[in-house]
Amino acid sequence: MTVPREMFALVQKHDGYSGTSEGPQIDRLDRYIEATTLPTPEPADGQVLVKMRMASINPSDLHFIKGEYGKPREKGAPAGFEGVGEVVAGNGAHAESLVGKRVAFTVGENGSGAWSEYALTDAATCIPVRDDMRDEDAAGHVVNPLTAMAMFDIVGSTGSKSFIMTAANSQLCKLMTALGRDNDIAPIAIIRNEAQAQHLKDLGAKHVLDCTASDFATQMKQIIQAEKPRVMLDAVANQMSADVFAMMPNRARWVVYGILDPEPPALKEMGQLIFMQKQIEGFWLTRWFMSTAPEEQMRTIGEVQKRFVTGAWQTEVAETVRLGDAMSHLADALRSPNGKVMLIP
Amino acid sequence: MTVPREMFALVQKHDGYSGTSEGPQIDRLDRYIEATTLPTPEPADGQVLVKMRMASINPSDLHFIKGEYGKPREKGAPAGFEGVGEVVAGNGAHAESLVGKRVAFTVGENGSGAWSEYALTDAATCIPVRDDMRDEDAAGHVVNPLTAMAMFDIVGSTGSKSFIMTAANSQLCKLMTALGRDNDIAPIAIIRNEAQAQHLKDLGAKHVLDCTASDFATQMKQIIQAEKPRVMLDAVANQMSADVFAMMPNRARWVVYGILDPEPPALKEMGQLIFMQKQIEGFWLTRWFMSTAPEEQMRTIGEVQKRFVTGAWQTEVAETVRLGDAMSHLADALRSPNGKVMLIP
Repeated sequence: MTVPREMFALVQKHDGYSGTSEGPQIDRLDRYIEATTLPTPEPADGQVLVKMRMASINPSDLHFIKGEYGKPREKGAPAGFEGVGEVVAGNGAHAESLVGKRVAFTVGENGSGAWSEYALTDAATCIPVRDDMRDEDAAGHVVNPLTAMAMFDIVGSTGSKSFIMTAANSQLCKLMTALGRDNDIAPIAIIRNEAQAQHLKDLGAKHVLDCTASDFATQMKQIIQAEKPRVMLDAVANQMSADVFAMMPNRARWVVYGILDPEPPALKEMGQLIFMQKQIEGFWLTRWFMSTAPEEQMRTIGEVQKRFVTGAWQTEVAETVRLGDAMSHLADALRSPNGKVMLIP
Repeated sequence: MTVPREMFALVQKHDGYSGTSEGPQIDRLDRYIEATTLPTPEPADGQVLVKMRMASINPSDLHFIKGEYGKPREKGAPAGFEGVGEVVAGNGAHAESLVGKRVAFTVGENGSGAWSEYALTDAATCIPVRDDMRDEDAAGHVVNPLTAMAMFDIVGSTGSKSFIMTAANSQLCKLMTALGRDNDIAPIAIIRNEAQAQHLKDLGAKHVLDCTASDFATQMKQIIQAEKPRVMLDAVANQMSADVFAMMPNRARWVVYGILDPEPPALKEMGQLIFMQKQIEGFWLTRWFMSTAPEEQMRTIGEVQKRFVTGAWQTEVAETVRLGDAMSHLADALRSPNGKVMLIP
């Protein structure tokens, strides 16, 4: 296959960190990104060049282009952490063996982002995708599914028979809801928009609460009393999260994996850390990759593909935007609360 | 030995929890405590009656009488968790074997407190005291020394070569400072009163900082940069603690064991939980007793006695108050920041 010397891509306009912590909302994409044509990158040793089929946009991508993520931006480099595509070139034996294969991947150090016609990444992180897996599921194969599996393992390790999720309308929480349903661990979903309540119940949530309702605190207390959830998987990290954590029983763990609300929460019940053995911590998939044995990672990836192919999981797509339309359409598309936004070349 | 039928004691005026969280400051003792004469309690199976020699007053005692501790008050029952005395009666084989011995003890469930002429406690929790150990050291044998040992073990388990202490002027922190000195793990002491700075340095603190100084934040940042402490042992739990935690490096642990400041801290850097793998937790000695094997507890207790007898540790006494003078003198004595207050019959 001939690879063109230039490619169209959405590249970052800034270097490093912004110093802000606004969260992943995007008002205008052109504050952070510009569309441009740049030389198609060449694989270094151990890398592959991937012709993009579809990129899945995650909150981490938006945190990143805003300069609020766990690693610095690079001006002029294509954005986008995750996607699916066909390997068209490789450097090194393993990388070359992937040429012609459809792979799901994330972009690591020294790579080139997925919001582009071509992406560059490490062959070692590429996951060959089964033929019977849809692009829509393969594009988001890594970040959400592995996060869901890893965080659900935290729930399982505590022996708790229920767990709380905030911002539960996300694709990630839908995956975890299905895991709860399939493992008899009751998902308790906190949302801000009642419109999706029935859908979450259909997916397996035992309780769905609207945190903007006037009786939210009363209801939450009753449900916590009944279900005794010991883990809260939290994408919001705000005062509501802190207040729910204060309602939880002994040995509760508040696991923060996203900061949708930049307002700092006040901890009104510090004594619970002492007397109730509560704990506040974070989850970052990057750390999971570093601390989990490769065999265990492979086992988890196999389980992910199986769940998608059998329909135990399904990626819900809100909108699919062409790369060339992103500057005008993407910010609007991302305002939809009900599914993933995908980018296609 | 003849045991009188009645005893003089300082008893609690309230039941249960107060619902407040003011911290361990006491303005007037008579808000919480009254002096009275009541029947000397009789040991149930497994219990001993201890003729008090000296009770050591800890912040937990004050939290407790104010109704802000991890267990409910009991109106009319003597206060006081810890002390040293002579066993004068026992019920059951092990309890009887302790009669005539000087023991250090804490008062557990179904006991009767140490702010009294006689205390009642479980024989199993009594620690026979070496003859060469002073009453001043034996009176505070359990709570501070075991807390110091257990929390210092947390520091050791992280491999960190330094650690931060807040409210570092306490007897507990002096014990931990000496442990740091003796184990080449640099103690970084945060205080609010410069008067004790040199004394803490003499005990082994590598850095002593006054958190009320105008350049505190700048100094703290420099020291954290240089020493990279990964554990903060925190008795204050306020905004200053949260801000120092935010300065600490990757994998920092904020271990809260006291709430001297009831003002809830705001967590301005929730993202550090995710990207820097930081963690917030508590320490409670009661939990340590439940989760530590008896052999390990005995080993630690032996180590504690050895440290006191050899002079590696020394209990600093600010004032010794007679039980009969407590209602008028105790609140004043507790205002001294420089040492323990002891009660004697």
